[in-house]
Amino acid sequence: MNQNGSTMKFLIIGAGMFGASTAYDVACRGHQVEIVDEVHPGKATLAGAGIVCPWATRLTDPDWYAMYAAGARYYGELIAGLEARGETDLGYRRVGALVVSENPAEFAAAGERIAARTADAPEAGEIRRLGSTEARALFPPLREGLEAIHIAGGARVDARRLSAAMVRAAVTMGARYRNDYITLSTHGGRARALDSTGREIAADEIVVCAGAWAAQILRPLGLMHPVKPQKGQIVHLRLAGTATANWPVLLPMNSYYMLAFDDSRIVVGATREDDSGFDYRVTAEGQFEVLGAGLDIAPGLADAELIETRIGFRPAASSVRPIIGRVPGFDNLALGNGLGAGGISIGPFAGRLLAQSLVGEKPELPIEAYAPGA
Amino acid sequence: MNQNGSTMKFLIIGAGMFGASTAYDVACRGHQVEIVDEVHPGKATLAGAGIVCPWATRLTDPDWYAMYAAGARYYGELIAGLEARGETDLGYRRVGALVVSENPAEFAAAGERIAARTADAPEAGEIRRLGSTEARALFPPLREGLEAIHIAGGARVDARRLSAAMVRAAVTMGARYRNDYITLSTHGGRARALDSTGREIAADEIVVCAGAWAAQILRPLGLMHPVKPQKGQIVHLRLAGTATANWPVLLPMNSYYMLAFDDSRIVVGATREDDSGFDYRVTAEGQFEVLGAGLDIAPGLADAELIETRIGFRPAASSVRPIIGRVPGFDNLALGNGLGAGGISIGPFAGRLLAQSLVGEKPELPIEAYAPGA
Amino acid sequence: MNQNGSTMKFLIIGAGMFGASTAYDVACRGHQVEIVDEVHPGKATLAGAGIVCPWATRLTDPDWYAMYAAGARYYGELIAGLEARGETDLGYRRVGALVVSENPAEFAAAGERIAARTADAPEAGEIRRLGSTEARALFPPLREGLEAIHIAGGARVDARRLSAAMVRAAVTMGARYRNDYITLSTHGGRARALDSTGREIAADEIVVCAGAWAAQILRPLGLMHPVKPQKGQIVHLRLAGTATANWPVLLPMNSYYMLAFDDSRIVVGATREDDSGFDYRVTAEGQFEVLGAGLDIAPGLADAELIETRIGFRPAASSVRPIIGRVPGFDNLALGNGLGAGGISIGPFAGRLLAQSLVGEKPELPIEAYAPGA
Amino acid sequence: MNQNGSTMKFLIIGAGMFGASTAYDVACRGHQVEIVDEVHPGKATLAGAGIVCPWATRLTDPDWYAMYAAGARYYGELIAGLEARGETDLGYRRVGALVVSENPAEFAAAGERIAARTADAPEAGEIRRLGSTEARALFPPLREGLEAIHIAGGARVDARRLSAAMVRAAVTMGARYRNDYITLSTHGGRARALDSTGREIAADEIVVCAGAWAAQILRPLGLMHPVKPQKGQIVHLRLAGTATANWPVLLPMNSYYMLAFDDSRIVVGATREDDSGFDYRVTAEGQFEVLGAGLDIAPGLADAELIETRIGFRPAASSVRPIIGRVPGFDNLALGNGLGAGGISIGPFAGRLLAQSLVGEKPELPIEAYAPGA
Repeated sequence: MNQNGSTMKFLIIGAGMFGASTAYDVACRGHQVEIVDEVHPGKATLAGAGIVCPWATRLTDPDWYAMYAAGARYYGELIAGLEARGETDLGYRRVGALVVSENPAEFAAAGERIAARTADAPEAGEIRRLGSTEARALFPPLREGLEAIHIAGGARVDARRLSAAMVRAAVTMGARYRNDYITLSTHGGRARALDSTGREIAADEIVVCAGAWAAQILRPLGLMHPVKPQKGQIVHLRLAGTATANWPVLLPMNSYYMLAFDDSRIVVGATREDDSGFDYRVTAEGQFEVLGAGLDIAPGLADAELIETRIGFRPAASSVRPIIGRVPGFDNLALGNGLGAGGISIGPFAGRLLAQSLVGEKPELPIEAYAPGA
Repeated sequence: MNQNGSTMKFLIIGAGMFGASTAYDVACRGHQVEIVDEVHPGKATLAGAGIVCPWATRLTDPDWYAMYAAGARYYGELIAGLEARGETDLGYRRVGALVVSENPAEFAAAGERIAARTADAPEAGEIRRLGSTEARALFPPLREGLEAIHIAGGARVDARRLSAAMVRAAVTMGARYRNDYITLSTHGGRARALDSTGREIAADEIVVCAGAWAAQILRPLGLMHPVKPQKGQIVHLRLAGTATANWPVLLPMNSYYMLAFDDSRIVVGATREDDSGFDYRVTAEGQFEVLGAGLDIAPGLADAELIETRIGFRPAASSVRPIIGRVPGFDNLALGNGLGAGGISIGPFAGRLLAQSLVGEKPELPIEAYAPGA
Repeated sequence: MNQNGSTMKFLIIGAGMFGASTAYDVACRGHQVEIVDEVHPGKATLAGAGIVCPWATRLTDPDWYAMYAAGARYYGELIAGLEARGETDLGYRRVGALVVSENPAEFAAAGERIAARTADAPEAGEIRRLGSTEARALFPPLREGLEAIHIAGGARVDARRLSAAMVRAAVTMGARYRNDYITLSTHGGRARALDSTGREIAADEIVVCAGAWAAQILRPLGLMHPVKPQKGQIVHLRLAGTATANWPVLLPMNSYYMLAFDDSRIVVGATREDDSGFDYRVTAEGQFEVLGAGLDIAPGLADAELIETRIGFRPAASSVRPIIGRVPGFDNLALGNGLGAGGISIGPFAGRLLAQSLVGEKPELPIEAYAPGA
Repeated sequence: MNQNGSTMKFLIIGAGMFGASTAYDVACRGHQVEIVDEVHPGKATLAGAGIVCPWATRLTDPDWYAMYAAGARYYGELIAGLEARGETDLGYRRVGALVVSENPAEFAAAGERIAARTADAPEAGEIRRLGSTEARALFPPLREGLEAIHIAGGARVDARRLSAAMVRAAVTMGARYRNDYITLSTHGGRARALDSTGREIAADEIVVCAGAWAAQILRPLGLMHPVKPQKGQIVHLRLAGTATANWPVLLPMNSYYMLAFDDSRIVVGATREDDSGFDYRVTAEGQFEVLGAGLDIAPGLADAELIETRIGFRPAASSVRPIIGRVPGFDNLALGNGLGAGGISIGPFAGRLLAQSLVGEKPELPIEAYAPGA
């Protein structure tokens, strides 16, 4: 229920991290939810195996960093809530993070950043400096000779599982979920949503969380939404028989990363291909690039099995920044988008901020700066 | 070149049977072509394994039948043309068709229809009545005890391969081909096409051949295109070690059919699920239905390997009928769509008719009755 | 270490449920282990999604039932042990079981059996009689009008995950694991094992747990091992968005069963195809049979997505009975095999019994009756 | 029928290139054939996309080269024969070959070899020297600046399709084909074959064409067959919309090669991993190696789609040489094996030589030097 105690009806378009979290949050507050998710190859969430570890990031914008930090903090509450509602297949684990770099100056800078940022972030856990042998004990394929900083509170997420769990939890609370596409049109200052059969879906709020596909959905309203697909190719390896469940995530302070899942799976990410359009193909070059980056930092993976390469389209504006809030000129239209490669870290929290603003609560962080069209 | 000898630029949206054929035909006439095809799971053409055998069909509308018959006739020219241009992987073979029915009255009626229709259709080839043993010699898994009518000119098509071949042939003649989505808007009586990056694609003619997805593309122009997805689930079986390349297609005079490909593959089609929306899933019920229909008419397939089930969304209006031609109210917008389950039989020919009308030639069959909005 | 405090070297051939459990158990006792597992399509363990619920079974042999019951009891200890060793991806959950039958006499008989057997089996948990509405609240796709008996202690297992976890735990304790094939020969009363490169693998005990493939491995020793492959086809469905993690397993008192996993997945098993040989194909008939059985008992699955069909070859003697123990005439050769469809319920416990006997301990249940060649 | 006009019964174990060709050839001669093929991942034939172009090879052994040359010559007869028997899906095309090298001395040497060898080999077709621009017109992704030698008679083969076609043709002539494993034992100077059910398969000749698996099958007979698996990882790329059907094969005079299929597919081969055992995994390193080699010689493939990587185990003795003929000490046992990476070029012809020798004809080339155990 909202501030006035009345129940609202939300139509959420898109069930990625952002949309699933928004849907889950408004469902938790007792509102009606209909989630409509179009089937596309290459959804960022479905491809995304990600890292929750904001404290090492090189980004410098303080507001953007605050969002990252709050996103990490929120994970504890989210996971506890889903478990309390009976969800078990969450794809999340707090395994710690290992920050390394070949560049001593960069490594030193990372150490300072981490120390400063974790001082008042208890969820970051203990911070320790490790020698090469210690680091390789935690992540055996790591190249010899690299020192590391270990951040106990780092975590990894299988976005596909976590978003599915949020949707399931919402459905258990009464939400409807289906695969279809929605087309929008304008009627007297309101957005109107039709499904593929041409039937109107009545809703008090229409929330577009369609990621890289949002521009396509919003264009009929005359909106030029600034988010475009940024393609990522993500390689999944397997070290059969190796217990990888507790391996930390590996952050080499370049645009690549590595993490492990319970099933002896190691994930190496990722290309960042701007202007890719919706090219959903694994390419020769992309595969070569990511394998090369992975084998460089972790030569012990040479003999690992290559089990799949996933493609995701991150929703990225020209400068990556969140877009959260109501759309000016419409009574009933809101957006959540634009998190780019940060969708896994921030998506759940951003969904909650949007949910809070839409039901009339004060968001935990101010979102005015992220307003659409602002 | 068109009637005036000048070269036009065509933007073809969609590379299924209809779009690929239109693109191929205008490219053959010397025009510039850009083909933009959005990636979707469940394209009818990609799923479609089909039959070219109009003479047995139970449909009664004479115009619609004339289209079917001309569509079959055109195949000979199309295949010869593609081969002449060096295309080899066409997925087409004239293997003959076997018409059977458990219902003697229906079988007799089919015999009469076929006789009447093939009298002046030399491309149908010889028509023969076969006893059960003869029929099973041609199609061994067939149930015992069924008589059959054999139509020598029946053919089968792998739509995925044939449409790819038409696109390749167009590209060889200079066409451009890429995967992206297009959004349309209106400017002073003209349609305007933007790609996913927001860049306008200049074209003298914008031709929407987007099948089940066309309504979504056209809605921003204020057009309520009457085509909706009709889902089909199509089962592929394999009889390893069996030479199936020359097995005739099997038409049991219900909504199911069976055909074989060179690689010991037998295809059983298909569900016809109206109001499916874009539900791309193989379902328990759909699989059970198609397998049941197949095992009923061809119990010899019991031990065949089930290798895959494909999903396609046929573009079907409430009453299936073609939509071919320019859109009223626009200078530069044309459509080809609505062939439903007839897309494989008719698609190539319909694409040619559309191409002819757009370059200013008189189409081989009159298409006025199929004009959009008519 | 064994009774004498000395460390032995075990070569375990096969890493299914039986072999993985034997390997894990001897590794826990401090012995050296080398696990060699040949890659085959259709391993029973890899296909097996199974049920741990012996109390409802219709089997009447008291010894065989005692093994089932002890197998279920052992699961608690096994799971706790793996978790204590850091394994997290176990594929096991105690979700309860729902026994139903269309046949009132059979349903009554099942009720009596369950009551008698669970009287002294606290691990079976509470037994309750449910009306149709209550039963469908627990397992919503269930056909209307069926009463049920609910057994709280029933569990389901993903055998692929559980056996992988046992192998990983053994590897963590120092075991070696690799994919290769082994050929055996005889030398003066001892079996000798060569790997694919012709290199001998020294071992104090060679333990063949190769399931349906064991006869092939043992024949060069002149042994006619009575185990043959019995093919099972197992259908996996998905109800996207539905929280299935806590659905009970469904036992309709015929040869079929149904269970659910966390990821909205429902498993329907299975054909029992004797004399199948190693025919690894999903067949038209097998798929039709299992879907038919599933839709009959749970028509609410009609619209579920069919996501995959797995093939497994159960190791079955002409009359299914375990084979556990040393092979007469050899100093260093032992077998574990023959559990048929019971491999998931009994496999872990049988592996422990074999491990106990090989290290010189007294097995928890007597195994003399199951001796090879007995 | 054999020389004496009587019909023999052959049991052929293995349906790769060698076994399928032997089976086809003896079936053509009117004999009874039973083909039993075990299911394994990683069969060399199933993975193999290969090249028939012996004239450029760097091998120097004149007998071995004579076999290669005759193998290429035989292809014409084989293809014509299969087509005459109605087989259509052969996976073979004479597209020409392009020999290139970065090393001028090596390029010159290759030119001399080719000139000498093709002087009396009309099936090699015309030999032409091409400049870089001409070469890139034939194979557009080729690196700029490389001259080439074009051999018109070079061909490429999809071994999976060709062997399936030979099996189908044999089955059409009455052969039986099934998937199972065979175990062999000795009885008074004869080999005895049992299938997986323990049933003996009566045969006048047992022919083991089991490739990398033959050692495992022969060891129970006390034979130490010298063939081991040599793993190859083969990358398949796609240039959608590009007409690749007539692209020549590319031979860069190292251990890699490239060829194209009709469906816009380009194949890059391959690793040569000795002592691999039966490790059927695509590995990080193997993929990286092959992609690197491919992108180096053909940088125009950077944006190609990576569609699959196939694994094959070539049957290779320590020095690769054929093994063809009867096994000493047995009345009824013969072998065909050991062709290594030459299996595609030579396999069909070697199968014919073996067939000729077994029915009592004089083989077209002498095979005494390749006798097992010789």
